[in-house]
Amino acid sequence: MTRRNFIESTGATYATLLAWGLLKPAPAEAFNLPANGSKDGKARKVVVLGAGLAGLTTAYELGKLGYDCTVLEARSRSGGRVWTVRGGTKETEVGGPEQVCKFAAGQYFNGGAARIPHNHQLTLHYCRELGVPLEIFNGGNESAWLYNEGGTGTLANKRMRIREYHSDLRGYTSELLAKALDQSSLDQQLTKEDVEKLVDFLKNEGDLNTGKLYKGTNRRGYKNPPGAGAIPGDLTDPYGLTDYLRSGYMQPVFYNNGDYTFEQHSTLLQPVGGMDAIPKALEKKLVGKIQFNAPVKELRKTENGVRVVYQKDGKSAELTAEFCVCTLPLPVLKKIDSDLSPIVKRAADFIPYMKTGKIGLQFKRRFWEEDDAIYGGISRTNMDINQIWYPSFGLMGQKGVLIGYYNFYSRAEAVGDLTLAAREKMALEQGYKIHPQYPQEFENSFSLAWQRIPYNEGGWAVYDDTVRRKYYPALLEPDGNIYFAGEHTTYLTAWMAGAFTSARRVVDALHARVGEYTKK
Amino acid sequence: MTRRNFIESTGATYATLLAWGLLKPAPAEAFNLPANGSKDGKARKVVVLGAGLAGLTTAYELGKLGYDCTVLEARSRSGGRVWTVRGGTKETEVGGPEQVCKFAAGQYFNGGAARIPHNHQLTLHYCRELGVPLEIFNGGNESAWLYNEGGTGTLANKRMRIREYHSDLRGYTSELLAKALDQSSLDQQLTKEDVEKLVDFLKNEGDLNTGKLYKGTNRRGYKNPPGAGAIPGDLTDPYGLTDYLRSGYMQPVFYNNGDYTFEQHSTLLQPVGGMDAIPKALEKKLVGKIQFNAPVKELRKTENGVRVVYQKDGKSAELTAEFCVCTLPLPVLKKIDSDLSPIVKRAADFIPYMKTGKIGLQFKRRFWEEDDAIYGGISRTNMDINQIWYPSFGLMGQKGVLIGYYNFYSRAEAVGDLTLAAREKMALEQGYKIHPQYPQEFENSFSLAWQRIPYNEGGWAVYDDTVRRKYYPALLEPDGNIYFAGEHTTYLTAWMAGAFTSARRVVDALHARVGEYTKK
Repeated sequence: MTRRNFIESTGATYATLLAWGLLKPAPAEAFNLPANGSKDGKARKVVVLGAGLAGLTTAYELGKLGYDCTVLEARSRSGGRVWTVRGGTKETEVGGPEQVCKFAAGQYFNGGAARIPHNHQLTLHYCRELGVPLEIFNGGNESAWLYNEGGTGTLANKRMRIREYHSDLRGYTSELLAKALDQSSLDQQLTKEDVEKLVDFLKNEGDLNTGKLYKGTNRRGYKNPPGAGAIPGDLTDPYGLTDYLRSGYMQPVFYNNGDYTFEQHSTLLQPVGGMDAIPKALEKKLVGKIQFNAPVKELRKTENGVRVVYQKDGKSAELTAEFCVCTLPLPVLKKIDSDLSPIVKRAADFIPYMKTGKIGLQFKRRFWEEDDAIYGGISRTNMDINQIWYPSFGLMGQKGVLIGYYNFYSRAEAVGDLTLAAREKMALEQGYKIHPQYPQEFENSFSLAWQRIPYNEGGWAVYDDTVRRKYYPALLEPDGNIYFAGEHTTYLTAWMAGAFTSARRVVDALHARVGEYTKK
Repeated sequence: MTRRNFIESTGATYATLLAWGLLKPAPAEAFNLPANGSKDGKARKVVVLGAGLAGLTTAYELGKLGYDCTVLEARSRSGGRVWTVRGGTKETEVGGPEQVCKFAAGQYFNGGAARIPHNHQLTLHYCRELGVPLEIFNGGNESAWLYNEGGTGTLANKRMRIREYHSDLRGYTSELLAKALDQSSLDQQLTKEDVEKLVDFLKNEGDLNTGKLYKGTNRRGYKNPPGAGAIPGDLTDPYGLTDYLRSGYMQPVFYNNGDYTFEQHSTLLQPVGGMDAIPKALEKKLVGKIQFNAPVKELRKTENGVRVVYQKDGKSAELTAEFCVCTLPLPVLKKIDSDLSPIVKRAADFIPYMKTGKIGLQFKRRFWEEDDAIYGGISRTNMDINQIWYPSFGLMGQKGVLIGYYNFYSRAEAVGDLTLAAREKMALEQGYKIHPQYPQEFENSFSLAWQRIPYNEGGWAVYDDTVRRKYYPALLEPDGNIYFAGEHTTYLTAWMAGAFTSARRVVDALHARVGEYTKK
């Protein structure tokens, strides 16, 4: 579907799309709401299901247009998957015991959304509008570790710094290409002068010597660093190309280390003090509009709108409204008694959700900073723990919380099936191979498996082309007076930007429809 | 000189070197001072010339050992080239008018040292010991700009995002190498299986398509970003390889963009609130020990030590001590009347210093964040401004200060020779080509040319192999009872780590000598 087709199909006005920055790379002022200042939403009732980012934003923006919104939220907190775990945080997974976080004051980790790409302008727009202070999240750290469990050869079961991997691979591939160019063996359109310039580039890209060979570089670090007086520093030796090729480091988990991808480019950002600063700021705009501890039980279409049955204080309660915006994750929606149309129910049944988990590990001492000079960033391994995240805040403080694993798919399912104690044990045993300081410094942990967290039961919607084609379109149209929002209704799944942009989309569609009524 | 030779030549004890972390990658606790607790420095007088980082650290560490230090500082402030420019900061360059900074409250830039590499453990050790809070300094930003002035072809005089340059060059070079490997045209030792793994790597490294061709990638960004509903996003088209090769983007200023080099690897750090937090924290440890506004005029060896003549309150004053530690930059030292030995004077005369300058530009609005999504990092160009730095602090605030140029060598000399108004004009006119918002948003500026700043007269010592061999050794031995410290006495020139490590080196040498006396 082309952009033009989409614009025509939504019925959204060009001016609105332009105003929302959907038609060009958007400067901040383009994120203002429709400039016509219409308040024709006034007194029209809307029930919003879910006080995650999509639900909060929907209610916030509809509120600006005069609508009377009520948000029903199953939990006692807002934010959904935007959730910061601190000392005192409680959670009981499906079938699990209650877990109470024992982190020290000031320590936390973001259990769900944990970084804001600088190119997600809509997320940043809301942080700016809501006055949420941001700081830099350090994503790619050249001093973090890579560790391949297994493999053969000199690099087997040997941790290495990302800078070593990057410098060596850039060195060897630049050397090989420079050699190929010298031999003019490439069937190519490059002139002699082009080739010379490219070889110059490669010499710098790979830090090759004057003979155009890669023999190591100070980019990969020093055995002994340069110092005062007669200490010029001693370089480390590069690993061999065949060592890399044969030792398991050619697994995709080690390629590029994530920081080449658009969403994970430097710069990443995070709210100061935890990601839940964003839903909390939205909550402040919605005082009296959110009903907490109010899980939805039934969702019905009526002649004039919608009727929602929910639980409140142990009793059944009911709410009617002209419109509903449903932001419930599909694994939750599919269990709710409703008269949604079959195509929507089918979408809820068949769109799969990511299994994913994290564990926060509190340590007595920030040994990753003190001993390894790692300030933020991510270590990567082919073990079940997959990633270790280092905090970008509280640098040089007394204690610290690492994210001891962040994993996905079947690996996350298997780890999620473990007891809390067994997850902790696994995280410590595997993490020990990268950080031998673990046993001595460990204090306590808090783990979560999103597929087991009530009212989510999954990390995020996972689309492949088939699922996108077969099921996705059902979520884009209103089902009677019920609209759908949430990351699962976007091409920005898993990101907060998805929740935000989905909310704006339904607000636009709903408001346009009301505008049509008003004209009549 | 090998490490062993050096250790033998200095006379420093193995235990001391070990304790200072010079013999192995040093965990924090290895930075403690010599563990013997000797106080045999007690009451011995030392005069330290210069209250820059090297001088302050020397006095701080000698103080711990019981020495009675006096620091003479020409200026009314400490820190030397560790200098934060804020509203109210004043400076008068040699031959220039007084400049008073008009930045708004909370706005600043670091005029000299401006980033701490995470692998400079000694600098971080002092931040930790002195309780200087750090935050992340964003060095490499994939969304910052490259701009080549001049050149020919489609990329001439066209700004591009660093991510475009990186993604395209990685793409094309990976494609070319994959092709060469397919043709088995390389005279190499790789097996068929090795080649397959390497090609897999290249497909990921360059984001090649299934035909192993580079046809662009979402890593370089979107024309229109993915969104909600039916908006999958539209990719941008890559620039051609020959466009890069022929349009001037093969100049070294654009290669790698700095972030491949060891000292500029992510992670970089900075003190919260300005780099001068470090000298200020040291100053607090030296209350009553520093004489400000006390420029040194004469430096004499005496039978029992040293005699220093300096100016104080318009009059000549004099100080005698057993030892002197001279941290004055060489362009300053060479003008002082002294009976230093000829080889030291020759070193001061012939070791060249970097010409380098910066300008801070205050803008009404953080348009680089709001319009361009640039949060910290550095844009690079072949114009005289060379680099534009974006602040990593105060994100999303009201105003902001950019470093509008940071240049070196003859380019910095030429810019330094301009009037303040002409420097500002040049910075604005050239910066406008990258940021068209400049004229509308500009408020005021503060510029500095280090070669013209009194008591520095240069950025840092610049060594090539010849200068290192001919002149450097003279600075490493005491000249009678006069020791030399400062970045110019290290292999870490220009870095704060050089100042710190040089101070520890002379403290070690001086204390070892006193220890020898004591034994007698």
